[in-house]
Amino acid sequence: MTTQETRLGDLGERELTRHIQGRIPATEVLVGVGDDAAALDLTSPALVTADVLVEGVHFVREAAPARLLGRKALTVSLSDVAAMGGVSRHAIVSLCLPPDLELSWVDSLYDGLLERAAEVEVSIVGGNVARSPGAIVIDVTLVGEAEQPLLRSGARPGDLVVVTGELGAAAEGVALLEQGARLFEDGQLSATGVWTESSAEALVTCLRAQLDPRPPLALARSLAERGLAHAGMDLSDGLSSDLAEMCHRSRLGARIEAAALPISPAVAALERARGGDALPLALHGGEDYGLLLAVDPAQFGELQELAGVWGVAIGGIGEFFEGEPAVHLRDDEGEHLLPVQGHDHFRADGSQGRRE
Amino acid sequence: MTTQETRLGDLGERELTRHIQGRIPATEVLVGVGDDAAALDLTSPALVTADVLVEGVHFVREAAPARLLGRKALTVSLSDVAAMGGVSRHAIVSLCLPPDLELSWVDSLYDGLLERAAEVEVSIVGGNVARSPGAIVIDVTLVGEAEQPLLRSGARPGDLVVVTGELGAAAEGVALLEQGARLFEDGQLSATGVWTESSAEALVTCLRAQLDPRPPLALARSLAERGLAHAGMDLSDGLSSDLAEMCHRSRLGARIEAAALPISPAVAALERARGGDALPLALHGGEDYGLLLAVDPAQFGELQELAGVWGVAIGGIGEFFEGEPAVHLRDDEGEHLLPVQGHDHFRADGSQGRRE
Repeated sequence: MTTQETRLGDLGERELTRHIQGRIPATEVLVGVGDDAAALDLTSPALVTADVLVEGVHFVREAAPARLLGRKALTVSLSDVAAMGGVSRHAIVSLCLPPDLELSWVDSLYDGLLERAAEVEVSIVGGNVARSPGAIVIDVTLVGEAEQPLLRSGARPGDLVVVTGELGAAAEGVALLEQGARLFEDGQLSATGVWTESSAEALVTCLRAQLDPRPPLALARSLAERGLAHAGMDLSDGLSSDLAEMCHRSRLGARIEAAALPISPAVAALERARGGDALPLALHGGEDYGLLLAVDPAQFGELQELAGVWGVAIGGIGEFFEGEPAVHLRDDEGEHLLPVQGHDHFRADGSQGRRE
Repeated sequence: MTTQETRLGDLGERELTRHIQGRIPATEVLVGVGDDAAALDLTSPALVTADVLVEGVHFVREAAPARLLGRKALTVSLSDVAAMGGVSRHAIVSLCLPPDLELSWVDSLYDGLLERAAEVEVSIVGGNVARSPGAIVIDVTLVGEAEQPLLRSGARPGDLVVVTGELGAAAEGVALLEQGARLFEDGQLSATGVWTESSAEALVTCLRAQLDPRPPLALARSLAERGLAHAGMDLSDGLSSDLAEMCHRSRLGARIEAAALPISPAVAALERARGGDALPLALHGGEDYGLLLAVDPAQFGELQELAGVWGVAIGGIGEFFEGEPAVHLRDDEGEHLLPVQGHDHFRADGSQGRRE
């Protein structure tokens, strides 16, 4: 008999495992939850990626509703598979949980995981639970498929540097959470923190970007199928860091225009209100989960059209050129090398980790 | 410039990622380490499993040499894939690491991971590193292949309950580590703890069983290919717990004979020396990583022969019957229901977690 207040330590590991297994819908995979491994019928090539959310590093328990956290734990890996032009099929969920955690928290986490999985037709096919001596750790492995994987290394000299979506909102969301702003589990605003109600719309935009990101999965897959990009990856560590990585992998330099950056209007408004600067958040803030692409200028029109079909904002922000792998920024003061300043958890207490 | 004393916090996440990527040999997969996901050329059905080692729960840093820990992190998942009759092909390694950890520790961990991967022809194709606020977490996802997956649910009434290897040594190993016994990174004895040198051989057996388990991978695959078992799983949580799970999944009861249990002679000797009892360790101690099988009595001879070829001890310890899913133990005092007493981390501070 479990109640809202049941804690994992009262329940025990076996009961918890069965409880979770009982919540996961049966799927059409060959062998699903409950055996030593899942057996999957895949077409080749298969894509596999793992990504982890660690309490106190990637999220704060009090500030991240468990249901949204479940959604995000899946989303960050969905973004990886999509950025390679793939479609996600199956997920394996590894949880490390402290014994004093309420079962209701785990249920809410799974509400989000299962809801997000259903949205993208991904089946949860296995996983495990282990005790954690402290922090909650959520590790999701995603298995997908891709006809023709889109790599980080394919950029060519003269290609446009293209990004989808807006920049900076997820990083602004971290700052807002630190200032006491909160969302309910359903994604509505529950507290404005130090902000007034007039900022509600901008707050919701940034908090949702941080707590419940929506990468352009369908566009990513579609553009890869049509061969509309030479290279691609998702924007997870921040533009400066991710673009430096694409330069490094493609052995090219890149030059971007500050004026062309699609800074989130919500971030611009919030930063303006407090006399801050939105540009660093757009350049170095992470977790935007848009796409970073290297695109032949001759194909950019077709790509813009496709993005329009999927309702995704898209823009060219610069170009790749033959040269040392580095990112150059052109602004009012001229052109200069852009230092890589994406969050680095091992060095500081930034808001997110490096993701493959 | 890194030295033995370099800590992850000095190095930073990007440098650490590149350092690790630089150590992983290039493989023949379609897309390996360094992109958003790995792209793998698999035949179907594919097996996927994830397993996690958490510091303070599954291991103690001072007592587990990092190289052996790397071996074990891979081995526990190799055991899962093998127990389903599969062959392991690719691994993805997710690490959560505290910033004050020395780089040399990570290097030793990878020594073990890469060495073990090479032994079994598994390629490491991706992963990620994240900061941990406290405990080290090592999560390995393994992708394999199986012609005909061997499930937990296939046992039939009249089948023999069969186990491979010896029981209790890994659990005894935990007790020995708590008493100060230690192995070097090369698997040799470095400290006997409270024991005398005369116990060295038994100590090494039990410590190695705990720190560097060797599941019968080739036998598992081979017996599944030949259809010599109706059901199979690995012995990770302890015989009483794992057999109860097979009963539950196969909707059968099982009766086992105390006298038939292949108790590890090393455990028997050590327990005798201190006036303890080896039986509970054999019944409820976990992490033996032998196989638990349901075998048609008519095929047991052929299975014994096959086990002989691979040099693996094998024995029938009881039988399955139509009845409530539960395990009955027959000993000198008659037959009684065996309570499930495998370690449960959420309830107590046992030595290992529940593994799928």
